[in-house]
Amino acid sequence: MISKGKLKRAKLLISCPEKPGIISSVTNFLLEHKANIVHFDQHTTDPQAGMFFMRIEFDLEEFDSSFEKLEQDLHVMARDYALDWQLGSKEKRKRMAIFVSKADHCLSELIWRWKSKEIPVDIPMVISNHSDLKELVEGNGIPFYHIPMSKETKEDAEQKALELLKGNIDFIVLARYMQILSPKFISKFPNQIINIHHSFLPAFVGANPYVRAFNRGVKLIGATAHYVTNDLDEGPIIEQDVQRINHRYTAEDLKTAGRHVERRVLAEAVSWHVEDKVLVHGNKTIVFT
Amino acid sequence: MISKGKLKRAKLLISCPEKPGIISSVTNFLLEHKANIVHFDQHTTDPQAGMFFMRIEFDLEEFDSSFEKLEQDLHVMARDYALDWQLGSKEKRKRMAIFVSKADHCLSELIWRWKSKEIPVDIPMVISNHSDLKELVEGNGIPFYHIPMSKETKEDAEQKALELLKGNIDFIVLARYMQILSPKFISKFPNQIINIHHSFLPAFVGANPYVRAFNRGVKLIGATAHYVTNDLDEGPIIEQDVQRINHRYTAEDLKTAGRHVERRVLAEAVSWHVEDKVLVHGNKTIVFT
Amino acid sequence: MISKGKLKRAKLLISCPEKPGIISSVTNFLLEHKANIVHFDQHTTDPQAGMFFMRIEFDLEEFDSSFEKLEQDLHVMARDYALDWQLGSKEKRKRMAIFVSKADHCLSELIWRWKSKEIPVDIPMVISNHSDLKELVEGNGIPFYHIPMSKETKEDAEQKALELLKGNIDFIVLARYMQILSPKFISKFPNQIINIHHSFLPAFVGANPYVRAFNRGVKLIGATAHYVTNDLDEGPIIEQDVQRINHRYTAEDLKTAGRHVERRVLAEAVSWHVEDKVLVHGNKTIVFT
Amino acid sequence: MISKGKLKRAKLLISCPEKPGIISSVTNFLLEHKANIVHFDQHTTDPQAGMFFMRIEFDLEEFDSSFEKLEQDLHVMARDYALDWQLGSKEKRKRMAIFVSKADHCLSELIWRWKSKEIPVDIPMVISNHSDLKELVEGNGIPFYHIPMSKETKEDAEQKALELLKGNIDFIVLARYMQILSPKFISKFPNQIINIHHSFLPAFVGANPYVRAFNRGVKLIGATAHYVTNDLDEGPIIEQDVQRINHRYTAEDLKTAGRHVERRVLAEAVSWHVEDKVLVHGNKTIVFT
Repeated sequence: MISKGKLKRAKLLISCPEKPGIISSVTNFLLEHKANIVHFDQHTTDPQAGMFFMRIEFDLEEFDSSFEKLEQDLHVMARDYALDWQLGSKEKRKRMAIFVSKADHCLSELIWRWKSKEIPVDIPMVISNHSDLKELVEGNGIPFYHIPMSKETKEDAEQKALELLKGNIDFIVLARYMQILSPKFISKFPNQIINIHHSFLPAFVGANPYVRAFNRGVKLIGATAHYVTNDLDEGPIIEQDVQRINHRYTAEDLKTAGRHVERRVLAEAVSWHVEDKVLVHGNKTIVFT
Repeated sequence: MISKGKLKRAKLLISCPEKPGIISSVTNFLLEHKANIVHFDQHTTDPQAGMFFMRIEFDLEEFDSSFEKLEQDLHVMARDYALDWQLGSKEKRKRMAIFVSKADHCLSELIWRWKSKEIPVDIPMVISNHSDLKELVEGNGIPFYHIPMSKETKEDAEQKALELLKGNIDFIVLARYMQILSPKFISKFPNQIINIHHSFLPAFVGANPYVRAFNRGVKLIGATAHYVTNDLDEGPIIEQDVQRINHRYTAEDLKTAGRHVERRVLAEAVSWHVEDKVLVHGNKTIVFT
Repeated sequence: MISKGKLKRAKLLISCPEKPGIISSVTNFLLEHKANIVHFDQHTTDPQAGMFFMRIEFDLEEFDSSFEKLEQDLHVMARDYALDWQLGSKEKRKRMAIFVSKADHCLSELIWRWKSKEIPVDIPMVISNHSDLKELVEGNGIPFYHIPMSKETKEDAEQKALELLKGNIDFIVLARYMQILSPKFISKFPNQIINIHHSFLPAFVGANPYVRAFNRGVKLIGATAHYVTNDLDEGPIIEQDVQRINHRYTAEDLKTAGRHVERRVLAEAVSWHVEDKVLVHGNKTIVFT
Repeated sequence: MISKGKLKRAKLLISCPEKPGIISSVTNFLLEHKANIVHFDQHTTDPQAGMFFMRIEFDLEEFDSSFEKLEQDLHVMARDYALDWQLGSKEKRKRMAIFVSKADHCLSELIWRWKSKEIPVDIPMVISNHSDLKELVEGNGIPFYHIPMSKETKEDAEQKALELLKGNIDFIVLARYMQILSPKFISKFPNQIINIHHSFLPAFVGANPYVRAFNRGVKLIGATAHYVTNDLDEGPIIEQDVQRINHRYTAEDLKTAGRHVERRVLAEAVSWHVEDKVLVHGNKTIVFT
């Protein structure tokens, strides 16, 4: 047995149509690759004809070579079993681009969790349609790109962003980015763009939701983090939470409370994405926490 | 000073247009009536030209006569100050009618809190459009009335219910009553009918909300208790809460979790109504908890 | 493929010292027994030399014979791999004895969840050191045994209880049972007695905890459900929760709030125990929810 | 009536022995000082012979002169009625000193809420027994003082801190300050030092609480913010909250979760203190949220 210190942790996510023996096959496969399984989560929508989801955390000896070998062999196995898979590791840090507008609460939270090493990620760039947050971003040593955007310039602006992103990032977080991305842009990052937005019970769709929630006297306000699809705010939900309020809260206080839920919910969702805990199936997620 | 044992607790709720000196006037008024104030909560939407809400809990000496005198004098004061007011006391227990259909979770919770004296209320009757819960209700010593209801018989059925209710009850709780009451019926009980319904982030308006919430992979399910107005499920919200769920929950499990939130939220709302903690203004509530 | 209707669900819990290949061995074993795995959860305290915990939910064809065969073969496998295991199924309902004293809130909650089929369990008996709850229990068709207990009669009383329980039950729930069971009694039901008690932040050990929590002005009160060991209230924790309170709550209101947390937490813990979701290791639990 | 724009908000906190007519007296007093009451909260421990607590939020015309006059007249009234009182206003920002050691999570949260104007406070200085956080503090334009502290140098170090604080601050926040302040130091700031510490159900008093909580398998971890008294961690509780964890959390993950609860709870407590929402009576608080 080699010394524990040399072991490094990796994570494998798998989705595929349900098929008898799939767990055995995968665990045997990992066993052959000298993986010591630490966590194993599995979920089936229907054991007869459903979809099968699996998340495995495991330690690898001689990480660099064994990770590479595993990756190669997974390509073969995936073909045979019609698997969708994703292999991650803290040793291969994900690269996260953050899109912001003017509000800094979600950005600050992400930066704090990054600096405190709670979210093990690289942040190669922050892109904004305003320049308000330039100082905050650059003060933390992160490159900041100001790409103004209007209806007329949208296509060009997105093109410019794409050029910056290309090959440099693994996923995007919209940390209160107040522009709607085009289907063309979104299609380049399937299940790789995370958004946060306020949520209420009941929903207040449309303009001024906080004022309307205030006028209705809601007792809870919430936030939802989700992957971005072409249906605005309707993509697969990653995380949600709420905060209790009362009649003494002004509409402004509701927004403040909303900010706190938003930054907490977004940070959790990003953290789970980074740790390869989220699988997407159709319009829903399986989150193995 | 008389012995503490003879004191009895009463509660006064007041709403009125904001006017300088209103707090002094009311507290002086209570002082003259020998009320010892225990809790005092007040809220103003706008101190210049808003609405003013007040809840006072106080102990009265020689309760029977002083309560009556207070009630009489409040009529006079209300006219002078354009007050809406409501005077309550545990000594004058509210009478609650419960409307149910087939589901027993909300009904059972209310009966349990009534029997355990947590909600100090009388239950003169339970009315149902089905007979399924007759045994449960009567087994607890509460009169049960089966009034079938269909589109055709609705008017007659409501008339029958009104006759049973008339003079016998102070408010109504719809404890999963699966019929829509007519505007005519509702108008007879303004802010005196409490309903409970499921709530989600986002909302799933229409049929099969639990199945759709399941398909969307929501992470929280909730419930809202509100006063009934003619806008279905859109009346002033009294209380809301949520429960966390995960991908392992089936659509059926979601319903089970929903039942637990519903009974908890409804029982809280009823409890606050009974203890005169809820003021309604327009389409929102002020709840002094 | 046989029709889905004939499938029946079973659950296997396994604990053992960590050993490479154990997941493969178990899943292969289940595959050979024609089990369709639905959920699979696994946890390792340390992949090199730790303990290994596994929970598998699976569907079996021709349930009666295959369940029996599986059980037999597990005995053999357990010997080879030094496994602790437990095999359960809704088809083999667990039998739960409830011990109560005078408070009915936990008992009522358990009875309600049993009657509403949320907790699929049989309740062969309720045992109490008082007769207060006899009517409630028998009114629900459950046998009630009154076994008075004092310091002097404790040994006899426990003996009497043991005779009633012997062979008739699978686990015991202390639903606010205000007697301390002897080590001798407890030793007969290792990790098979569930208790509920109040919990605070900070703890108020000793007499009158609610009064002391009130005097300290705590903002949360909680409850803990745990397996009973000889260390009073110190056994492995199954579930905990809290409820927010404020300065308007009297010491009596704190107790009321405490009752609500207690019944919710106990019911969850019992539900997880019944569904074979709880593994015990030393003085802690692994709960696969 | 003067224009609304000129109004400025103030808050009055009052504690005194219960006495009939006190509410009338105070509201009449405010009426005479042209105060428009916006919120009024009152609480009595016992209307016959208890303590009386009151919080009033009101708008003042011609703020500067009327606030001063009010303050003067309150001194007189306080003598007559044996009142403890406190008068605050956003116009008279409180000055907060922060004490830290090496952990930055609570400090960062306070700085963020200060910069985002959520907590309307001045921060004249941060004092630390280490120099690790110097850059973070100064980078935000706040003076940083490094005062090393050991058992031997404690008296001198505290003296040095006192000199820095004297006349420059209104209250102190211990944002994970890992030194125990002397009774002498504490006595200079009664109910003016706020501390945060982890809390568990049950408590794990002594060393390594997170490891012990992990070993016990707790399901919730919490935090308590309280005023500092000579009884270590036993002062009046301002706010508490918890976060749910599960068996997959390592002892290290528990600490991370603990940090999140700590910063949330501390920030709420500080916010309430700044907004004059907290009254202390003996060893408990009344928080009018």
